[in-house]
Amino acid sequence: MLKNMIKAQKPADEEFTARLGDERAKLFASQLKIKEAGLPVMVIFEGWGAAGKGSVLGKIIKNIDPRFFKVKTNAAPTAEDKRYPFLYRYMKDIPEKGKFVFYDTYWMEEITDARMGGKMEDKEYEEKIDSIKRTERSLVDNGYLVMKFFFQIGKKEQKRRLDFLLSDKDTKWRVDKNDLYENKHYDESLEVYDKYLKDTNSPTAPWYIIDAKDKKLAELQVLEFLNQGIETALKNKDLAAPILQNTFPLKKTPLLKEVDLKGKTLTDEEYDKRLDDLQDELSQLHYKLYRKKIPVIIAYEGWDAAGKGGNIKRITGALDPRGFEVQPIASPEPHEKARHFLWRFWTRLPRTGHIAIFDRTWYGRVMVERIEGFCSENDWQRAYNEINEFEKELTDWGAVVIKFWVQIDKRTQLKRFKERQATPEKQWKITDEDWRNREKWNQYEQAIDEMIQKTSTEFAPWYILESVDKKYARIKALEIVVEELKKACDSKK
Amino acid sequence: MLKNMIKAQKPADEEFTARLGDERAKLFASQLKIKEAGLPVMVIFEGWGAAGKGSVLGKIIKNIDPRFFKVKTNAAPTAEDKRYPFLYRYMKDIPEKGKFVFYDTYWMEEITDARMGGKMEDKEYEEKIDSIKRTERSLVDNGYLVMKFFFQIGKKEQKRRLDFLLSDKDTKWRVDKNDLYENKHYDESLEVYDKYLKDTNSPTAPWYIIDAKDKKLAELQVLEFLNQGIETALKNKDLAAPILQNTFPLKKTPLLKEVDLKGKTLTDEEYDKRLDDLQDELSQLHYKLYRKKIPVIIAYEGWDAAGKGGNIKRITGALDPRGFEVQPIASPEPHEKARHFLWRFWTRLPRTGHIAIFDRTWYGRVMVERIEGFCSENDWQRAYNEINEFEKELTDWGAVVIKFWVQIDKRTQLKRFKERQATPEKQWKITDEDWRNREKWNQYEQAIDEMIQKTSTEFAPWYILESVDKKYARIKALEIVVEELKKACDSKK
Repeated sequence: MLKNMIKAQKPADEEFTARLGDERAKLFASQLKIKEAGLPVMVIFEGWGAAGKGSVLGKIIKNIDPRFFKVKTNAAPTAEDKRYPFLYRYMKDIPEKGKFVFYDTYWMEEITDARMGGKMEDKEYEEKIDSIKRTERSLVDNGYLVMKFFFQIGKKEQKRRLDFLLSDKDTKWRVDKNDLYENKHYDESLEVYDKYLKDTNSPTAPWYIIDAKDKKLAELQVLEFLNQGIETALKNKDLAAPILQNTFPLKKTPLLKEVDLKGKTLTDEEYDKRLDDLQDELSQLHYKLYRKKIPVIIAYEGWDAAGKGGNIKRITGALDPRGFEVQPIASPEPHEKARHFLWRFWTRLPRTGHIAIFDRTWYGRVMVERIEGFCSENDWQRAYNEINEFEKELTDWGAVVIKFWVQIDKRTQLKRFKERQATPEKQWKITDEDWRNREKWNQYEQAIDEMIQKTSTEFAPWYILESVDKKYARIKALEIVVEELKKACDSKK
Repeated sequence: MLKNMIKAQKPADEEFTARLGDERAKLFASQLKIKEAGLPVMVIFEGWGAAGKGSVLGKIIKNIDPRFFKVKTNAAPTAEDKRYPFLYRYMKDIPEKGKFVFYDTYWMEEITDARMGGKMEDKEYEEKIDSIKRTERSLVDNGYLVMKFFFQIGKKEQKRRLDFLLSDKDTKWRVDKNDLYENKHYDESLEVYDKYLKDTNSPTAPWYIIDAKDKKLAELQVLEFLNQGIETALKNKDLAAPILQNTFPLKKTPLLKEVDLKGKTLTDEEYDKRLDDLQDELSQLHYKLYRKKIPVIIAYEGWDAAGKGGNIKRITGALDPRGFEVQPIASPEPHEKARHFLWRFWTRLPRTGHIAIFDRTWYGRVMVERIEGFCSENDWQRAYNEINEFEKELTDWGAVVIKFWVQIDKRTQLKRFKERQATPEKQWKITDEDWRNREKWNQYEQAIDEMIQKTSTEFAPWYILESVDKKYARIKALEIVVEELKKACDSKK
């Protein structure tokens, strides 16, 4: 893409000034439309060192009220960043509805820097490219406008600019060793950039190559593309995104009605003994996986009063409190609702070596949000694949992902609801909403079946915990957790 | 305090079991009262390495539903942590109303570790102690329960435990070099701990020394103190906190009615020339302070339509977008309202070398929140001192803090309101609320005068920007910013 770049032609001064004024006014006018439409806008600046990304960015934002934008600058990942999935620090910074975020480099630079130094093998590169493509698509499908600009300059021009920056102590810190490497190995770097741009050029989030030799002309090019992109996005706002088929290998999992709840019980004696043994084992494993820096994500879903809380307690009871966190998931807060539905889960991920236990999860999208109409049909239908992709990121990162559905029958639920109501210290656990949900049992059952069938991937399968006898369900959960963690610890040095 | 510790006496087995059971049940029962009362609870575990903080913490939280607590573990500060004020990473993690946060070490350990290695001089130590005392007091005054436990064990006992941990590869990572230092230099370390405990022991946030030789007994001691603390805090919930007098040197600043707005104008020519010069100068200074890693905080308050936005734009227009952020402050979101009123400002601080411009600020507490009754009278009356203390933290950290009040008269405001209403692209800037606020002009004027008089400290004084002629106010703001930044750059190598 870079090698065939068409050089930008600077119009005559008068025309140039007029067009620049027009485009600035257009951007100024569009900020309110963006706010009203609730459009989140990501504007990404990538390119050669000293290509003028920062200075053009500085000019563009002058047309926007500070209430409507943020600027994020990304440098090389820190040691702390490296304890999270590659995408984590970028996903943390996505804009909320109706606002812009401008990025002075985003996930591209981390990849291309590593490629240039030969610090990233082809296989890892291809995985990262897949991650990026999926994530950009998912952002766009969820209503984000993603505008990607690459600032292109030639070798000589770059050299001239770097030398100029290096000549003054107040600017020389702006030149880092990557910039110098890039210039010295210009042709190799060009290949790396060019390949990345081709690999991540997609109709939903295309690249715009900016001829950055002339700074004012660069500003005009960015403004023209950006305004065009905004106009299109506002027009297309209500278009439904395509519903992609699952492409990951699935694991056979039963329908809820096929789950046999009968006879799944334990005596108190059996329970006590196995609980002790399993908790001891888990406790030892926790230290091992901490040392091996394996992240673990345990996701709990289940009927109201199925016994999720007590089940989770039997897991956490065996864990060092410094190495795990329970994430209780309630309805999203306003600042969470204003972002991609997975944002509040991205930001709650554990660090390597830690365990995060989610009490309710991202599957709310295809259960309560679907049934209560909190999102559109298109949204929840797309979500199966988006969730599979999300969990793929987690397992590719090296996480163990264990998903539990805690199953009871309708009669058992009624019994427990009544018990809760009759017990003063448990009354807070039962609300009108629980009773309303109960009335929708059949709708939920259908949604749950669809969810389990579509998201039980080989890398993150669902496990059903039969919980009419809570003791049985707890032991089964512990057994699965111990087995999966053992496997993970054994397979990692 | 440690040297005179009274050894805990273990009761007979039967009594012990009964008391432990009682205390656990009490904590279990109190979680809902805490939720209902909206009490935020901080439970801090400090103490010798291997004293059993983590294991007791693990037992305590078993009595609480995961929806109501979080555990935070603090290690030595990272390079990124060090780019913020010392208190920053701790303040980020304070609980919200109705919830517990348990800390496996809090701000104590960072200080005592540095003291032991001799890496912190007396003067810095004393400053940090002052910061901590003020902050703990401010948390308590704002309704937080702060429970501080120190786990005490003897030299031999610690040695035994460290050796045991070191004997297994799955536990030896839990012993760090500070633990070993501590044990080797036990008496010196005891002095450091003892002094810190004495220095930060206060009636509002006292220390509880836990005799941690027997782990079960340690649990009982913590539970008894914690339950007692909770009971007292729930009882005292509606007590008003004392209103502390200002202790910082104040700078004389005029009352609003003494501010002469007449004649404060500039011709377009003067304005253009000085704007260009000042922006050039500021642009150069921005690189300098980035290099010198000086953080800058510019706070804007002013009447509606006084011209804050345009004024800010003239500052940011000169800045590299990668080195500043505008923080527009609206009403707090639910998760912000649920915490100390300064929390949302602590979490928005710039890193060293960066500039944060606040468009409206923490002074909302003593203006809109006071006048609209969003907080109690006791709350806003305390806030003057709390704010001075907050700004003291910022300037002690090395930040330049510049506070602007943008001043106009009532007639000018009316003219601008009407203008905004008549201009389609400005209509969004004028709301019914603006008109309602205007009706309360006199109340606001009184509040603003009190605010400026009480918070114009020598380290963070208020500057009045006369803004009937916006050009005049912009140039004045730029001049002040340039002068203050120059001073800061000159005084730091």
